[in-house]
Amino acid sequence: MRRKSLWYVLGVLILSFILVAQLGYARRRFRKRRAGGVAKSQMVQDALKVYVPPGDHDQYYAFLSGGHSGHIYVYGVPSLRHIRTIPVFGYYPPVGWGIDEHSKKMLKGLIFGDTHHPGLSETNGDYDGQFLFINDNMNARVAMIDLKSFRPVDILGPVPNLEGNHASVYPTPNTEYIWMATRFSVPIPRGTVADVTEYKTKYKGVITAVKVDRKNKKLKIAWQILMPPWNYDLADSGKKVSYGWVFFTTYNTEAEFIEGKPLEVTASQRDMDYIIAVNWKGIEKEIAKGNYKIIDGVKVFDPVKTPGYVFALPCKKSPHGVDVTPDGEYIIGNGKLAPVVNVFSFRKMIQCIKNKDFAGKDMGIPVLPREKVLEAEVPVGLGPLHTVFDDKGYAYTSLFVESAVAKWSWKAEPRWKLVDKVPIQYNIGHIAAPHGDTVNPRGKWVLALNKLSKGQHLKVGPDLPECLQLIDITGPKMRVIYEAYPEPEPHYAMVAEAKVIEPNVREVYVRPDRARPGDLVNNDPNAIWDPRKARCERRGNTVECWMTEIRSTIMPNVIRAKKGDTVILHLTNIEEMRDELHGFAICEHNVSGVPAPGETMTFKFKADKVGVYPFYCTNFCSALHQEMQGYLIVSP
Amino acid sequence: MRRKSLWYVLGVLILSFILVAQLGYARRRFRKRRAGGVAKSQMVQDALKVYVPPGDHDQYYAFLSGGHSGHIYVYGVPSLRHIRTIPVFGYYPPVGWGIDEHSKKMLKGLIFGDTHHPGLSETNGDYDGQFLFINDNMNARVAMIDLKSFRPVDILGPVPNLEGNHASVYPTPNTEYIWMATRFSVPIPRGTVADVTEYKTKYKGVITAVKVDRKNKKLKIAWQILMPPWNYDLADSGKKVSYGWVFFTTYNTEAEFIEGKPLEVTASQRDMDYIIAVNWKGIEKEIAKGNYKIIDGVKVFDPVKTPGYVFALPCKKSPHGVDVTPDGEYIIGNGKLAPVVNVFSFRKMIQCIKNKDFAGKDMGIPVLPREKVLEAEVPVGLGPLHTVFDDKGYAYTSLFVESAVAKWSWKAEPRWKLVDKVPIQYNIGHIAAPHGDTVNPRGKWVLALNKLSKGQHLKVGPDLPECLQLIDITGPKMRVIYEAYPEPEPHYAMVAEAKVIEPNVREVYVRPDRARPGDLVNNDPNAIWDPRKARCERRGNTVECWMTEIRSTIMPNVIRAKKGDTVILHLTNIEEMRDELHGFAICEHNVSGVPAPGETMTFKFKADKVGVYPFYCTNFCSALHQEMQGYLIVSP
Repeated sequence: MRRKSLWYVLGVLILSFILVAQLGYARRRFRKRRAGGVAKSQMVQDALKVYVPPGDHDQYYAFLSGGHSGHIYVYGVPSLRHIRTIPVFGYYPPVGWGIDEHSKKMLKGLIFGDTHHPGLSETNGDYDGQFLFINDNMNARVAMIDLKSFRPVDILGPVPNLEGNHASVYPTPNTEYIWMATRFSVPIPRGTVADVTEYKTKYKGVITAVKVDRKNKKLKIAWQILMPPWNYDLADSGKKVSYGWVFFTTYNTEAEFIEGKPLEVTASQRDMDYIIAVNWKGIEKEIAKGNYKIIDGVKVFDPVKTPGYVFALPCKKSPHGVDVTPDGEYIIGNGKLAPVVNVFSFRKMIQCIKNKDFAGKDMGIPVLPREKVLEAEVPVGLGPLHTVFDDKGYAYTSLFVESAVAKWSWKAEPRWKLVDKVPIQYNIGHIAAPHGDTVNPRGKWVLALNKLSKGQHLKVGPDLPECLQLIDITGPKMRVIYEAYPEPEPHYAMVAEAKVIEPNVREVYVRPDRARPGDLVNNDPNAIWDPRKARCERRGNTVECWMTEIRSTIMPNVIRAKKGDTVILHLTNIEEMRDELHGFAICEHNVSGVPAPGETMTFKFKADKVGVYPFYCTNFCSALHQEMQGYLIVSP
Repeated sequence: MRRKSLWYVLGVLILSFILVAQLGYARRRFRKRRAGGVAKSQMVQDALKVYVPPGDHDQYYAFLSGGHSGHIYVYGVPSLRHIRTIPVFGYYPPVGWGIDEHSKKMLKGLIFGDTHHPGLSETNGDYDGQFLFINDNMNARVAMIDLKSFRPVDILGPVPNLEGNHASVYPTPNTEYIWMATRFSVPIPRGTVADVTEYKTKYKGVITAVKVDRKNKKLKIAWQILMPPWNYDLADSGKKVSYGWVFFTTYNTEAEFIEGKPLEVTASQRDMDYIIAVNWKGIEKEIAKGNYKIIDGVKVFDPVKTPGYVFALPCKKSPHGVDVTPDGEYIIGNGKLAPVVNVFSFRKMIQCIKNKDFAGKDMGIPVLPREKVLEAEVPVGLGPLHTVFDDKGYAYTSLFVESAVAKWSWKAEPRWKLVDKVPIQYNIGHIAAPHGDTVNPRGKWVLALNKLSKGQHLKVGPDLPECLQLIDITGPKMRVIYEAYPEPEPHYAMVAEAKVIEPNVREVYVRPDRARPGDLVNNDPNAIWDPRKARCERRGNTVECWMTEIRSTIMPNVIRAKKGDTVILHLTNIEEMRDELHGFAICEHNVSGVPAPGETMTFKFKADKVGVYPFYCTNFCSALHQEMQGYLIVSP
């Protein structure tokens, strides 16, 4: 007996020792934490849930819009680490986007943008990992990004008749269309002048259906819908039972804009605004029948002249997001200025439409009777903005004013009940979850995209970043367990399983003669693959060079021009190994880019300064990277 | 006795249970890890060391250069989270940098840059938290950033006579000067044409001393040194015993540049290049005596004509970094193409200089006898690039070719011994540590700034990010415990204790009439602080507006112009609360900015398109942010 208890003592001692060693760091950190913080063992669990050791990968991609940066940020979840920026609507010097001739052509002189709502391409209502779409709220544009290269393959716009493309992109379940809608109504076509005193009659809202051509990797304006001058805020495409429909929120259904008077006052008078339900399958047929008029080159459908396709669901109050449940049956209106989410039934809506059971019209649009289409009002809290879904029948709504996330049951029984709430630091805008807007949400995490960070981090001057918080939804109570500080400004995000995206991604551009099916191919006719073929040629006042970069030499290493010459440089990175990037910049010439392995970039500029200007590799590539340089010599 | 052993059993069970619960997540993650990975309890410790729970702050700032992005990234250590970008040498739309008139003036039309080596202002050889300096390798510029606002207050350049400003900024111990030196020699003054065939005679290297005026927050060219056409790579200012000196590495001391022949070949012929030792205190006096000639407006000192101030230390081979030990006594040359670091003794160097004990001259510069100035050669491994120091007498050298960090003793006994090495993923360039280049290194962490990430993360197309790894140096063996993926391209970083930086930082611009000493004051004469004073005025073909932004209104909300007018907008964010940013953009006009609380921005553009163009707040600011809009009406 004596012997046994000795073993017990030893066992206790050893285990205690291990435990103490493990908790040592937690404890030290913990001392500094505010009173009422989480328990120690809970923090160990939190830390381990977000820790991805060197060499391991995150399990999810998050594609965050970059707001007025004009780009998209790729984050890993759960570690919340930024991995790469996808350049889209403006300059992005780290890769030369907007500087080389190829991307310059796509941008058409608009060098800034404002990205808001990324959308992944879908097949049967779930992400298929092929393309990513994003809107530009600043310049009425949309972009199509190939997830093979993580680069835009097409930018469409500025699209006619439309300004402030906010309610965008929200692909349909088989990516037939992406959507664009006017947050700011204007007189149309673009270039028409009418004063704001004529707002109600001369300003128009416009919804645009953009056709997605996956094969040719192109976007094309299909048709537009002429709408009252309401502000169209967000959207969602119907799915499953509601396939063939798309829904838009509106505010300012007061249809007023008064000089010198804040819109925040005039647009907040009504207790109800609308969710606009659009039968796009139906309008597609009307357009095919020729039922449209051309405005600024676009086929425009008028739902007032041809009723039966566009309806208004009365929604409390100035709603921000509209989100269709994974089964397609319920349309959730997040009533920004009401403490509830409005749940509308698609079946009930269809019944009313069949029965022509309307509560009158507003500016020509039939209004459905709220009491007959409403399934429930869920009292989620103050300032509901946007809702996503998990795999267990729950919905998660961001509450801006309350700075919290509400969890409520939409399919789990009992239905339409608030079941949990968690505070957010601070003021959440949108919310995102793995496949959280598809027919098959994956659960596990919710991402809070917060508008203010208010000193959650080290001080960085007056320009504070946004705050991105990770909520663990696997337990009975939601827990905010980690946060990061994205660049301005993630308005919305797509969160996708890595296994859906990764198989499609390529890491080098392949020479055409070595390409195999599925490769990312460099078909640039100005590509050269042998430094011995590198050369400059003069034609009149133009000097054109075909150049190569490979560790650790740029050839030609001397470029000669005369003042006033146009210089065109076709620069091919002839490396065939992933991650062997080379940069290229010419001192004092605003020429800078980074061709990826196998990529060709073209730069064009005027040699307008006499002198000797070095060029060099800007992207550290090898032990002899510093030696990778040459000279541009501009003679008088 | 029976009773006691029951307690033991219970104790063992409870402790085991807690242990198992804690390790649960570690185990699950761990299953996926490669064989031979770290022990489970080790991973728990690693996770806890880098985990900063929501609400807690990081303990260190890391200021990472942004390479060809042109900016600086602010990271938190140990969490490796990006917090903010400091815009410097080019467009940065998230805050409107380069777009508004104030920053536009600083950039002088050069809209891209290539930042390499940040330097924090120092007092008595340690960081004082006041200013941050950064070089532009692309356009021969340096910038001074006020850490009150985290914004540039002065940008100097392009500086005459100098191209490829790489060996920069490396402040002197009391921030008397920051340095600039030519990586790429050119014929001078700028604009002189000479062919590369005349490289050896007509191309010049130039070192520039830039005077720092803390009071007026200005940079000024003090004087330059005319140097042979070698490539000056990196630098470090002497400290303590070596105060008054600055050291530069060189490569291509072959002084050759041959058309069609890779520089990597011609510049790697010699087994020795140099570390150039410059007695700046001495040259300062020569300049004061008038011993200079003016080239392109700058006082240029010729060390060949006036010997006694510039010397060459023979260093193995094409060295990259030069780093002075915290006591100022040893000068470490990191011989990129040799497997050793060269340790030179400052005292021995001074002795040789006193004795005029030279091993001849190279292009007029006296060469010191290597055997007499060398203290040690430490065989660290392949491709040593750069060295930092800890608080225990050890040095840490990055090894590019070997992709590792070497730890060796410089003060700890026995001296000059390699004591540890850790592999890096992959190919480390520079290395950084808390106050690791000062007289008072803080130890604890080393940051590896790696050039390649090679799939350490989710796939993101051909443009792979860099990789930043965190090395725990507290134990007997170094451990890489975490990593992040910074935007291109951190060449070097300053790592500083938060308590040194934070007291200086301000988070709002204060109205002059409410300012107290130490505030960040908005002294813009065009600032207005009352929406009732918001207005537009016409003078000839110019429309000038004084505008305000406050939740949730922009005033005036209508701006009227005629086609061809010049429009000037002075926009003041009149919020007085931190983090209350407002954005401003005009659709299709390339106007976009985000004034911080209390800040005024000025935009100037031509109204060249007839029509109605919305403007709006781009930075989500309140529940009624969507309503924060107005119209620019341009009549024919």
